[in-house]
Amino acid sequence: MNHPLDKSSDYRSLARKISLVENESFGYKDILTALHPASVPVIGITGPPGAGKSTITDRLVAIVLEQGMRVAVVAVDPSSPFHYGAILGDRIRFSRFFNNTGFYLRSMASRGALGGLCEKIIEITDLLKSENFDYIIIETVGVGQSEVEIAGLADTTVVVLVPESGDEIQSIKAGILEIGHIYVVNKADRSGADRLQKLLEERIQENHYEYWTPPVIKTSATAGEGILLLWEQILSHLRNPALQKKHLFLLAEKLYRLIQKNRMADISKHTLHQRLEQEVKRLDFNLYKFADEWK
Amino acid sequence: MNHPLDKSSDYRSLARKISLVENESFGYKDILTALHPASVPVIGITGPPGAGKSTITDRLVAIVLEQGMRVAVVAVDPSSPFHYGAILGDRIRFSRFFNNTGFYLRSMASRGALGGLCEKIIEITDLLKSENFDYIIIETVGVGQSEVEIAGLADTTVVVLVPESGDEIQSIKAGILEIGHIYVVNKADRSGADRLQKLLEERIQENHYEYWTPPVIKTSATAGEGILLLWEQILSHLRNPALQKKHLFLLAEKLYRLIQKNRMADISKHTLHQRLEQEVKRLDFNLYKFADEWK
Repeated sequence: MNHPLDKSSDYRSLARKISLVENESFGYKDILTALHPASVPVIGITGPPGAGKSTITDRLVAIVLEQGMRVAVVAVDPSSPFHYGAILGDRIRFSRFFNNTGFYLRSMASRGALGGLCEKIIEITDLLKSENFDYIIIETVGVGQSEVEIAGLADTTVVVLVPESGDEIQSIKAGILEIGHIYVVNKADRSGADRLQKLLEERIQENHYEYWTPPVIKTSATAGEGILLLWEQILSHLRNPALQKKHLFLLAEKLYRLIQKNRMADISKHTLHQRLEQEVKRLDFNLYKFADEWK
Repeated sequence: MNHPLDKSSDYRSLARKISLVENESFGYKDILTALHPASVPVIGITGPPGAGKSTITDRLVAIVLEQGMRVAVVAVDPSSPFHYGAILGDRIRFSRFFNNTGFYLRSMASRGALGGLCEKIIEITDLLKSENFDYIIIETVGVGQSEVEIAGLADTTVVVLVPESGDEIQSIKAGILEIGHIYVVNKADRSGADRLQKLLEERIQENHYEYWTPPVIKTSATAGEGILLLWEQILSHLRNPALQKKHLFLLAEKLYRLIQKNRMADISKHTLHQRLEQEVKRLDFNLYKFADEWK
């Protein structure tokens, strides 16, 4: 297995930069302020565990590489120790691309055990956008918050479901209809696939989307079926002119978080904890007053 | 149906205060800085939709009221329009307590369609803690982030599952083993209940908890079975001396958020959006530099 880091010093430098930023190591601010991110399309792939997100990502990567283009994949995995097995299994699937210089893979642990993108995903996406990739794919287990976050970060969000999701879609995953630009019913050879597709299409009809009505596509990713259609729909959504407006909102959101971080840089929760240890003993202690007086 | 607001002017005043704080209406800061929250135990009830959280909460409320004590329930529901039916159905179950002055119910919409506690849950819990309740129960649909949040807010977190959750527990809900103090297998008359109980107990064994090993309790909430045992376990956990230490960490977390809010009060995302609209046209625009220069 040839890892791209052995083939390209560019990738070695990129990997180092990502690590510096991820760990906020010395010099990471300089890296970020020197960036000039290009407008590289970001495709988000999300959905419940076991839906086949990695296989679909793998197939999409193959399509991009066949066209002589370059693609970076960021795979965000829950950091819970219970997941190690699954992660390694997923990653091995990408191994056939490891000696292709057009392919770059970065695995990251999510913020919390229950999912959520890692804290530096915005910065890392900007780093990749400055490295001449044609596409960036972010793959993440959809458990609550992370689905919403990826919807904010990606230009096109693909939600991957399986026929078994049919029962849940009624109750658990109502919010999922608000984040996807394309819905995939994967493992479409299993029973219930048509039912889920129909259910999703009905719900989408009721929802009255403004500028883009999400299609529902059936795939069998391991057999490669439906993947070309999916890719065409992704390209079609990426050409949608309303995306430009969304970019600006995303940028404002990023800016807000960066300013917030700068302004809170002098405070650590540890310090607050130590101060509170004494303060709470005061009979007239009031948290809101204390916060107001902090400055 | 008698609503408690008709029986007690105290509750009317409490409801008004909660609304003021929720909407950040004029005077809400004064309400908060005047609070002296008592150390009222907070019990969190979380788990997937349809697990029977409301029925369990209903049964626990009955136990507290029978003992002549007072309990406040905060029911946090996803704000997605698809959920309206379920919410109304749940609320009707509590109606038998509505003319009991020891019972107070507040329903709140969650922050996002996918769950998550409402933004003011910390403040509202402090409001309730200042009102002579003996217990506070926060019930929330467990969809990702909200489970983690409730684990931070509640003294004792009860995770409610159903036998059907058995298959998921292996993959999706690994993180769930990190937040519960008590696990409930509800609808225990269904097949798979023993299997799920055994699976959970095995996982808990592997996890090596520090000061409290979570018990796994089977209940049939609609029949009232197992509820007294659950209540005993809740009381037993609330007596655990390690809780004191956790309180301080929670307080530090609250303080951090309050200071963050104060410091960001002068910035709106709308303003950032407007500024960016012009700035991005500059050829040398860099978001990180721009954030650093903002102050």
